[in-house]
Amino acid sequence: MAKVRVPATSANVGCGFDSLGIALNLYTTFDFELLEDGVEFVGFEERFANENNLVYKSLLFTLDRLGKNISGVKISIQNDVPISRGLGSSSTCVVGGIYGAYLLTNTPIDRQEIFTIANDIEGHPDNVSPAIFGNLSASCTTDNKEAVTVTYNVDERFNFLALIPNFETSTEEARKVMPKEILLKDALYSLSRLGAVVKAFETYDLSLLKKVMGDKIHEPYRKEIIHEYDEVRNICQEIDSSAFFISGSGSTLMNIIADKNNIEKIKTKLAKLKYKWQPILLKVDTKGTLVLD
Amino acid sequence: MAKVRVPATSANVGCGFDSLGIALNLYTTFDFELLEDGVEFVGFEERFANENNLVYKSLLFTLDRLGKNISGVKISIQNDVPISRGLGSSSTCVVGGIYGAYLLTNTPIDRQEIFTIANDIEGHPDNVSPAIFGNLSASCTTDNKEAVTVTYNVDERFNFLALIPNFETSTEEARKVMPKEILLKDALYSLSRLGAVVKAFETYDLSLLKKVMGDKIHEPYRKEIIHEYDEVRNICQEIDSSAFFISGSGSTLMNIIADKNNIEKIKTKLAKLKYKWQPILLKVDTKGTLVLD
Repeated sequence: MAKVRVPATSANVGCGFDSLGIALNLYTTFDFELLEDGVEFVGFEERFANENNLVYKSLLFTLDRLGKNISGVKISIQNDVPISRGLGSSSTCVVGGIYGAYLLTNTPIDRQEIFTIANDIEGHPDNVSPAIFGNLSASCTTDNKEAVTVTYNVDERFNFLALIPNFETSTEEARKVMPKEILLKDALYSLSRLGAVVKAFETYDLSLLKKVMGDKIHEPYRKEIIHEYDEVRNICQEIDSSAFFISGSGSTLMNIIADKNNIEKIKTKLAKLKYKWQPILLKVDTKGTLVLD
Repeated sequence: MAKVRVPATSANVGCGFDSLGIALNLYTTFDFELLEDGVEFVGFEERFANENNLVYKSLLFTLDRLGKNISGVKISIQNDVPISRGLGSSSTCVVGGIYGAYLLTNTPIDRQEIFTIANDIEGHPDNVSPAIFGNLSASCTTDNKEAVTVTYNVDERFNFLALIPNFETSTEEARKVMPKEILLKDALYSLSRLGAVVKAFETYDLSLLKKVMGDKIHEPYRKEIIHEYDEVRNICQEIDSSAFFISGSGSTLMNIIADKNNIEKIKTKLAKLKYKWQPILLKVDTKGTLVLD
């Protein structure tokens, strides 16, 4: 029996498209139990309770990588991370499955190695890094195809108000709407801001964050496939918004607020919209994935 | 009488085109002395000893901004920063002139204010920020046209081997060779690396730096206008190179070396090339501009 808890994540933070990701205190917990043979799924939605299950596939991939075998496995999930909403539910499954393989075979946990495997499965190091290491991370793939990540501490005072609608977005569609070429000045807009964004998260500098959180690389295209983006943004900016960005590839919109007392006001205004936006107050997760027993 | 010392800078560090700049321990010192009228230049090359002098123009611009006047001024320069070689000689003149105006009018020094004025004169905050604040900085211009910069401490063990040829490059020409549109993946190549580059400079992580210092935004175009770029790069990479990049818009090429004992080997090989490359070992400047008396 092995139990592991993986945090939700918000990727593409501000100007950090395909680069900056942050871990949040919303979790998926996985239990792994050895069986004599076969695979059992407990707690999953029916559409995921089969051999294409991402946790199971990640576990098998990792066993293969480690050169190890198990007879069979029961995988149980307790999931608080909404699915296909840009909060990293897929990454929690990938990371959970990898940890499962390590724990069931008594392989010593090596986060750097797990990060490499997770990137090999998921393909985007910025999506998996914060789920493993916690906090804010900047990630890239080197010329030698090595996944590299560095972590920055995030001040724990930050209030992330996740605004979650009642529709999903497809990451595949969100990638399709983006152009293959962009204006140099739009690239530099993000590139010149990234250093300041990182510093603002380290130091709780809301005023700096407000000045530098813009993006012209993905948000202008992706906001077109997120219903009511403009309406939600306007509501937030009118009431309390130090930074506003699409979480991952959406559909969740993330609003950093200075004052928790403003949540009710935002909630009241959102209730008038069509897509049942649910505001959830989140904090940074500073620990990353934890083995619970 | 006022004396001020301004460090040389290397802009466009690695993946940080128009974003990251670093201050180096090579200096230009300026003396300012009030005259009853007119302007005198001491120590300048003849081509600069006239009313278009950048120090003088920056001083006048600043006096106007401060709403102050002086009767006349003698400006003396002692310059160790080579001119038009991508080591920030123009920025030292701009920053020197601004400090001159502050000091001659007994205006209290405010670096943030000086940075704003320097950006208004120079137009690129990443070029002037490290000359004022020292260390490594990431700079941008906000949507409201405000110049913003953040500073990162650089580990003092770094060895910057500046390779200075006997030809100048024109910043204007270097801007012209760049395309207006770039591939999204080339933009993300830099954007995803910047966080790791900053971390590597803070922690003296040469191995990390080596993995993440690439650039596909300006170097592929600008290397075409820097004679012997490939030859110099090959020599460095063969002997000792943790990072290699065009300093500013060239012509200087910057090579970060792990071991100072390799300088002679690099020097010997460079001596066989045509453009008389002079290697100069530099360290980070951590103080920025200093008022000397």
